[in-house]
Amino acid sequence: MAGGPSTPELAAAVAQAGALGFVAAGYRTPDALAADVAATRALTPAPLGVNVFTPGGAAGDPAAAAPYARRLAADAQAAGAQLGAPRRDDDAFAAKMEMLIAEPVAAVSFTFGLPPETVVADLKTVGSEVWITVTGPDEARLAEAAGADVLVVQGVEAGGHRGLFRDEPGADGLGLLAALQLVRAVTDLPLVGGGAIMTGAGVAAVLAAGAAAAQLGTVFLRCPEAGTSAPHRAILADGARPTGLTRAFTGRLARGVRNRLMDEHPDAPVAYPDIHHVTAPLRAAARASGDPEVINLWAGQAYALAPERPAGEIVAELAAGARAALGQAAASLSRSSP
Amino acid sequence: MAGGPSTPELAAAVAQAGALGFVAAGYRTPDALAADVAATRALTPAPLGVNVFTPGGAAGDPAAAAPYARRLAADAQAAGAQLGAPRRDDDAFAAKMEMLIAEPVAAVSFTFGLPPETVVADLKTVGSEVWITVTGPDEARLAEAAGADVLVVQGVEAGGHRGLFRDEPGADGLGLLAALQLVRAVTDLPLVGGGAIMTGAGVAAVLAAGAAAAQLGTVFLRCPEAGTSAPHRAILADGARPTGLTRAFTGRLARGVRNRLMDEHPDAPVAYPDIHHVTAPLRAAARASGDPEVINLWAGQAYALAPERPAGEIVAELAAGARAALGQAAASLSRSSP
Repeated sequence: MAGGPSTPELAAAVAQAGALGFVAAGYRTPDALAADVAATRALTPAPLGVNVFTPGGAAGDPAAAAPYARRLAADAQAAGAQLGAPRRDDDAFAAKMEMLIAEPVAAVSFTFGLPPETVVADLKTVGSEVWITVTGPDEARLAEAAGADVLVVQGVEAGGHRGLFRDEPGADGLGLLAALQLVRAVTDLPLVGGGAIMTGAGVAAVLAAGAAAAQLGTVFLRCPEAGTSAPHRAILADGARPTGLTRAFTGRLARGVRNRLMDEHPDAPVAYPDIHHVTAPLRAAARASGDPEVINLWAGQAYALAPERPAGEIVAELAAGARAALGQAAASLSRSSP
Repeated sequence: MAGGPSTPELAAAVAQAGALGFVAAGYRTPDALAADVAATRALTPAPLGVNVFTPGGAAGDPAAAAPYARRLAADAQAAGAQLGAPRRDDDAFAAKMEMLIAEPVAAVSFTFGLPPETVVADLKTVGSEVWITVTGPDEARLAEAAGADVLVVQGVEAGGHRGLFRDEPGADGLGLLAALQLVRAVTDLPLVGGGAIMTGAGVAAVLAAGAAAAQLGTVFLRCPEAGTSAPHRAILADGARPTGLTRAFTGRLARGVRNRLMDEHPDAPVAYPDIHHVTAPLRAAARASGDPEVINLWAGQAYALAPERPAGEIVAELAAGARAALGQAAASLSRSSP
């Protein structure tokens, strides 16, 4: 949950409760990432993961960012913000990898494509598991061939950026259960399933579908430990609006609660991270002023079920709920034919 | 699975194997429906269901059908077919209800909206369960208030028409797991979950998510008992193309394997069943000539996993697979923290 919601306190609370807490490397400088990992470790001795954007995440045509930025001028003026310059970078990938080789964590998960071969080898050498996010069976085959230890299968229901290796307009996204079944048919690797999982029953469903674990993000957005902004929290608490997929905020497909900026730019181009850098000051100003209409309100489809509770309590309730749900399902099936 | 794939032989084979077989009322005359039910009953003493389109299924602007039809003229000419006249009807709803009151079945499921209050009451009087298809929590509340005994929760992954009460362009569809969690939060009614369920693990996932049963369609499309056309079967067997949502064939949102007609008309209007009647002769001609590019190739997202096997074998394998998957998930969870 890069970009604000992820904090050392949140990752530590989740880890302390017995789940695997992840620190977000995205949009952080290498020094800030190192500080986040150290701060999390100071809070818990439990194993940790770090999630990293791959350099392959850059997408689309950088030249598309400037014309789109001109369409945002009035919004920027209204917010008293100056739009950022379109810029293409790799989010300091190499320096972050150096840091993670020097200070290994239990698992490094990647999104937006395959990490380089040497990175996979180096991480394994220092004892880190390599997790690669996939959205369907074609990406799963590539990730397995690239040496992944674990595949994170992300359904179209998930909040935030889609993990797509290539962001292509018009493509249909696989739902989580469809993706889990299709990926399982092409690989025997352990799977982690994610996308709008908000309840113990949802966790149980992912496990029953054959995943070794469930990945959850949105369920923690309202935790006191999360860095979620006040206007984002207010929209989540209200729970009334639908989510949608958009490129309006970053130039790469992502799911958030629908708001004005998203609805006004259904045809925002693919240009990542160029457009991310364009809109960042606008979004920061809106977060500060409390205007939810031009903020990226990342959230999974079932965000309305997110509780306002400490993360540790949520983990405990999810685990207990998953156990109960599996027991009830097994009992129900044994009563019924065929 | 109205429109061809559903047959008395398929419903009977499924029912005989211990699942609940459904006869499709959609697009059938009342006499043909009565004959289908009688033929199914002649093959099995097991309980049956019938699925019915509600009159509320009519959608959009009938006037939008004629301009769209003009855009199909070249395709019709190429296929040697004459396009049908746009027509709005209610699929003989009242006569079908009379038939189902006179010859009751175990369950009558509805799609495209709520059945009239008197119909719900009459069906319950003759001992039929009333199942209503919903795609999210708002429709679930309405269906419960209308007297539904069971809610069929359809995820966006599902093949064929979306059960939407209102088909609105631009709306985002809930994935099955998201929909099951959100619907469970607003009702205690028994749920049936459907959408791209193709394996025992998929069935297990739906049960673990809290549904009382899973609904499957696409998994049976390649059965010898199904009425699926030869070109449709060939595309399913190939398994290479993605699916997508389209209004190009009927004027109502539905999921099928992508083909030329779908890709050429991403902006087909909402006008149902007007456009269904327009394209019916074109689709019939293409089915006869074996051209898959202008046929509605309805299929769920995971259709590539559909086996070419007798329906009874599929049901038995799904049930055994679901039991095994629930057992494995429970064992895996009991080994792990938290």
